[in-house]
Amino acid sequence: MAKKDHVSVRDALRIGKGTERHDPGTFPVGPHKKPKALKDLLDSGGRLAKLQEALYAEGVGGGNRSLLLVLQGMDTSGKGGTVGHVLGLVNPMGVRYAGFKKPTATERRHHYLWRIRKQLPVPGQIGVFDRSHYEDVLVPRVQKLVPAAEWRKRYAEINAFEQELADAGTTVVKVFLDISPEEQLRRLKARLETPAKRWKYNPADLDARAQWNDYQQAYADIFTKTSTTTAPWYAVPADHKWYRNWLVARLLIETIEEMGPKFPQADFDPETELKKLEGVGVPG
Amino acid sequence: MAKKDHVSVRDALRIGKGTERHDPGTFPVGPHKKPKALKDLLDSGGRLAKLQEALYAEGVGGGNRSLLLVLQGMDTSGKGGTVGHVLGLVNPMGVRYAGFKKPTATERRHHYLWRIRKQLPVPGQIGVFDRSHYEDVLVPRVQKLVPAAEWRKRYAEINAFEQELADAGTTVVKVFLDISPEEQLRRLKARLETPAKRWKYNPADLDARAQWNDYQQAYADIFTKTSTTTAPWYAVPADHKWYRNWLVARLLIETIEEMGPKFPQADFDPETELKKLEGVGVPG
Repeated sequence: MAKKDHVSVRDALRIGKGTERHDPGTFPVGPHKKPKALKDLLDSGGRLAKLQEALYAEGVGGGNRSLLLVLQGMDTSGKGGTVGHVLGLVNPMGVRYAGFKKPTATERRHHYLWRIRKQLPVPGQIGVFDRSHYEDVLVPRVQKLVPAAEWRKRYAEINAFEQELADAGTTVVKVFLDISPEEQLRRLKARLETPAKRWKYNPADLDARAQWNDYQQAYADIFTKTSTTTAPWYAVPADHKWYRNWLVARLLIETIEEMGPKFPQADFDPETELKKLEGVGVPG
Repeated sequence: MAKKDHVSVRDALRIGKGTERHDPGTFPVGPHKKPKALKDLLDSGGRLAKLQEALYAEGVGGGNRSLLLVLQGMDTSGKGGTVGHVLGLVNPMGVRYAGFKKPTATERRHHYLWRIRKQLPVPGQIGVFDRSHYEDVLVPRVQKLVPAAEWRKRYAEINAFEQELADAGTTVVKVFLDISPEEQLRRLKARLETPAKRWKYNPADLDARAQWNDYQQAYADIFTKTSTTTAPWYAVPADHKWYRNWLVARLLIETIEEMGPKFPQADFDPETELKKLEGVGVPG
């Protein structure tokens, strides 16, 4: 276990009503040099893996707690890369990933939380939402798909939903991967210019980029309305991938350390079992 | 991409009617020294991650192919460790893990394949079954829970099911993690003696150990009846964890290389998109 860190990344990145986001290219907390951050992420890997194992074990032992990481951000902000580099540090047994794309015809016939509820983590798991129910207060608003009264009432519904999750034992960590429009331009260019990256490009990304300011306004309202004590939002400066990975790993570590998952107590006597084990012997 | 290897791990480990398993403590193929195997596994990691990305990309592009890794083995044979060390090498976005424990009351009211079908990988994914439908020709047989005629007809059902998966684009890789009873004794002892490992121990493990030979016979019949050309079984000597991890990584690499996943063709013109991208400019 690495030594206790004294800087709280959660405190540094938490946002909500009236708080300003840090610039996407800055380093408000932690290492601001790549080699240090990469080494640190490797060390964090062991720590995060141990914490995840304890959470998983607690779940096996009958505990009800789980963690849900919600990842939001503009196209190319690095949601998939974060999953690979940060969640890739822990045993996939304990991770449940769900990506939410444009709703299907079936999904549209249901309440927007219907498809979300089907992908929630079970006790012991770390759930990861790559996009989430927050798309339902982003896309319909910016693209004017539903009346304003309709998407406006969703903030309260979402807060109630997340409170319900908390009451059931799920700690929700909401991360906004914050990139600058300049960095998005570089990444979209790279996707178009590199054949092996071209599959990640979607011509519709340009429509969303053209509405950049509308999306930023919609995000600002999300942070104002839904960054609650129960489920706060963290804005991660994400222009530097290595820094983004370090921050998200630390957000998870701080959160699970606060949860303090416990290995379950044995409901058997180890000494008795050891004697029985000797008695079973080796067959064949 | 690492250089092409000439030894086929699949050929070395494939089992079925009339073939002998290698001893669980031996090294029939590949490295037989731990440092070499660990270094090699790290190299394999990059290779496996690239292949997985191509499979995932193919799925995003509309392809229908996926991979399903079925892990079976006696208690402590290392199913969870294999998931952590081998599947942990690829992006969790593309991995769908499902563990199958003792069926619940609801599951028992359905056909035994009902719960299995709900966890199949979707196109582009690597699915991992930690135990599987093969439990249904193991436990009911050894514990005499259903008549012999009942579990005997399941072999043909399972072969038909796996053929159906293959027809739908899913390549099934079935791995038996083969440990010796002596190694199981050591691992069960370690679970009892190490407080942080105790949560993995279940007193019922001793009952299964007492029936070791019955389970081995049931496995032998599984290999005889269900190691098909479509979905062959591989017996992985698993007394050495580092060797087991190396072998399973190589089984996956060889399998996905043979599948040859292709990055999808762009359904847009990159040059046109680059021009449009410049036109959108930088907002704000």
